[in-house]
Amino acid sequence: MPSVGDTIEVLDHGFVRLDAAEATDLSVVNGARVSFLQMKQGPDAEVDAKDEGLIRFLMREGHASPFEHNLFRFHVRCPIAVAREWMRHRWSSFNEHSLRYSAAIDDFYIPSAGQVRTQVGKPGAYRFEPVDPETATRAQDLLGKHYQEAWNRYQELLEMGVARELARLVLPVGIYTEFYWSVNARALMNFIALRNADQAMWEIRQYAAAVEDFFAAAMPATHAAFVEFGRRAP
Amino acid sequence: MPSVGDTIEVLDHGFVRLDAAEATDLSVVNGARVSFLQMKQGPDAEVDAKDEGLIRFLMREGHASPFEHNLFRFHVRCPIAVAREWMRHRWSSFNEHSLRYSAAIDDFYIPSAGQVRTQVGKPGAYRFEPVDPETATRAQDLLGKHYQEAWNRYQELLEMGVARELARLVLPVGIYTEFYWSVNARALMNFIALRNADQAMWEIRQYAAAVEDFFAAAMPATHAAFVEFGRRAP
Amino acid sequence: MPSVGDTIEVLDHGFVRLDAAEATDLSVVNGARVSFLQMKQGPDAEVDAKDEGLIRFLMREGHASPFEHNLFRFHVRCPIAVAREWMRHRWSSFNEHSLRYSAAIDDFYIPSAGQVRTQVGKPGAYRFEPVDPETATRAQDLLGKHYQEAWNRYQELLEMGVARELARLVLPVGIYTEFYWSVNARALMNFIALRNADQAMWEIRQYAAAVEDFFAAAMPATHAAFVEFGRRAP
Amino acid sequence: MPSVGDTIEVLDHGFVRLDAAEATDLSVVNGARVSFLQMKQGPDAEVDAKDEGLIRFLMREGHASPFEHNLFRFHVRCPIAVAREWMRHRWSSFNEHSLRYSAAIDDFYIPSAGQVRTQVGKPGAYRFEPVDPETATRAQDLLGKHYQEAWNRYQELLEMGVARELARLVLPVGIYTEFYWSVNARALMNFIALRNADQAMWEIRQYAAAVEDFFAAAMPATHAAFVEFGRRAP
Repeated sequence: MPSVGDTIEVLDHGFVRLDAAEATDLSVVNGARVSFLQMKQGPDAEVDAKDEGLIRFLMREGHASPFEHNLFRFHVRCPIAVAREWMRHRWSSFNEHSLRYSAAIDDFYIPSAGQVRTQVGKPGAYRFEPVDPETATRAQDLLGKHYQEAWNRYQELLEMGVARELARLVLPVGIYTEFYWSVNARALMNFIALRNADQAMWEIRQYAAAVEDFFAAAMPATHAAFVEFGRRAP
Repeated sequence: MPSVGDTIEVLDHGFVRLDAAEATDLSVVNGARVSFLQMKQGPDAEVDAKDEGLIRFLMREGHASPFEHNLFRFHVRCPIAVAREWMRHRWSSFNEHSLRYSAAIDDFYIPSAGQVRTQVGKPGAYRFEPVDPETATRAQDLLGKHYQEAWNRYQELLEMGVARELARLVLPVGIYTEFYWSVNARALMNFIALRNADQAMWEIRQYAAAVEDFFAAAMPATHAAFVEFGRRAP
Repeated sequence: MPSVGDTIEVLDHGFVRLDAAEATDLSVVNGARVSFLQMKQGPDAEVDAKDEGLIRFLMREGHASPFEHNLFRFHVRCPIAVAREWMRHRWSSFNEHSLRYSAAIDDFYIPSAGQVRTQVGKPGAYRFEPVDPETATRAQDLLGKHYQEAWNRYQELLEMGVARELARLVLPVGIYTEFYWSVNARALMNFIALRNADQAMWEIRQYAAAVEDFFAAAMPATHAAFVEFGRRAP
Repeated sequence: MPSVGDTIEVLDHGFVRLDAAEATDLSVVNGARVSFLQMKQGPDAEVDAKDEGLIRFLMREGHASPFEHNLFRFHVRCPIAVAREWMRHRWSSFNEHSLRYSAAIDDFYIPSAGQVRTQVGKPGAYRFEPVDPETATRAQDLLGKHYQEAWNRYQELLEMGVARELARLVLPVGIYTEFYWSVNARALMNFIALRNADQAMWEIRQYAAAVEDFFAAAMPATHAAFVEFGRRAP
């Protein structure tokens, strides 16, 4: 059961680390129980079977606001292509490694052989299948070579005196970045519903699965209800 | 120094209680330090003088996002007239006592004699002054009598079988309500800047001052910078 | 088909007026078509059957962001008890008649005889039924009398020199208020889904139905898809 | 005076086009005037000198909410490096060209000779100065060569059958993207305050200046007040 301080490795050079959390099933229960002024407060407050029923009721009926009284703060390392999708989630707080004034990270994402995919199907219903092993190797080699050249050119521009914020123009979206992400359980469930899902890009799905592991460990009754009622954010 | 679990009494029957918090100056420092990948992590991480300078820099320059990686969860009891202003703050999470299905609270706000105010000045620059003691007493008596009658009529409607959600129509905005409020330090500073301020209604100002006490205790360097740079949210 | 400038009367003294709108099905279509750079721009751009299929696809699959590129600005007059629920919708902009510096509106909500309701059923599954006609009349009379006295006392406090922001404490939540509400179609659908629904308070439901009429007239294909896929906001 | 339908060219291959707007000074005036129920409605409503004074008062005192009752919908074409900063603005709606299922745009940003910059100064106070002409030419050549190779490799991966969502990994953040951006005047001023500013990256500043031109044309009194009171969002 991963918890605060733990790190889950994702992809070839990435991770999700839970930096801090104030997130319990009790926060949901009390968010709802304030409606009728029967909050469970104090150090001995516990979630019982009736409270778990309440959480299930809230999830099923789409009563979303009680799920917001908590915080997860994650530290994430992922390719820019993944971060670009992640940061479209607006009910969230982000701070990211800056390439304006700070040097880039010398790590790039190369899919494993089994994850070099081809796209099949029609618009609105695309699927992905692995390419043959030989093509996978060629694609991996091409990516590796390109990343190395991009990095060399980035260094070359810096050595010429070009500012970091301009030199970064050559960096590919396969390069790794890092950021802090703070989010409550409602917005987290929305992220998981969209990103740990069949139609999501496989790479971000691996991150969303790691995030879900932390969520399930911290708020087991809430996570169980989320799964039971179709993995839709309330 | 008020902290999690403590309650500050406000007005005649109200309070602000800090139900939970994950809020430290370090959360701000790391939100900023992720820009250049020099976060301070682990149990021994501490905010030093250089970090306090960083917090002051962020506040002065209006770099707001590092202030968002934290959570305060308050439990508040205040008149509806105050809650109406409070809940206009949208980067926040609220759950409130419901008068649809639950009975109202039999507590009403009567200003102390010194706070029975009259309004002077011109539009855009109103001020308030105490009325004379006799008028204050008359106003207090009138409020007390009205509140009692409103409560009696609320009970009467309930006894007639009228639903709570309709019976509440008679309840005055001076009646107390309770709610949970979850908020990060950036939105909290915006609340304090607007509500613990000269132009705010005196009653909500008392609540905002209590909220500010909890904020200052949890995040002293951030609060000091907030005060130093004019009490404007970054 | 109500449109900009039109007013729909609601309850005994309320209304919803559409003050302005920049809201078309085309805004949704283009919000989606930018994904593959095939926007329909210019004065002759039209939504065809294929585009309506696209809107249905977006709604069904929960692709919500294309529904945000538009604006409805409503002018609303409703009881405070209704406004209190309305303003909990945070992805919205509100400005409301202020009772701090401006005099209250001398209009109060009295339910029609058929809408004086009693509450039946169990927690989590409450229903409402009309009370008998005699009780309805008694409740209406009681409300009318209480409103009149509350108004008289409000005037009395003002005549004593008490500031408006304090005198309002006697005003019941059945009094009317007015506000401007600006919102995009995605947030509007969330409002309609929650408030023009069985479990909503009957009074706010009448407002939500009026809002839905304006929405359906401005964005017919979007509204049709909203209805087809279960009246859930995407 | 640029208006709806107009395009302002930015950088070597970019632009800002105002796709639609429902944005006038009157929307601000009425957002404020609803406080005292003196809105100016109807086709003949006009903003007079007194209303302009009201707008200045709102801006000076930080009364921000009346600035939200309007909409600008922009169509933007800019490098990914610029879009990455832009999309951190959360009180906004975005839809962007997708590189998962759609082919990338074959346009890349190369700074003009005068904008090949070097970074000088100390952390927290960096400045930029042009490099010498010879270095500028070398940097431009290097960028052009790299972009061409990145594009060739992108094509090569696609020809090998690799999915677009993976082939994009080689694309540099200097490549152009397009998106729709919907925003109200309050959030727009926040964007302009941060991005059409000395400390902003020069490239995004050019976009923010174009955005500001559209804003100033649509809402001249609001823009004038924004400039007068220090270019800070209220």
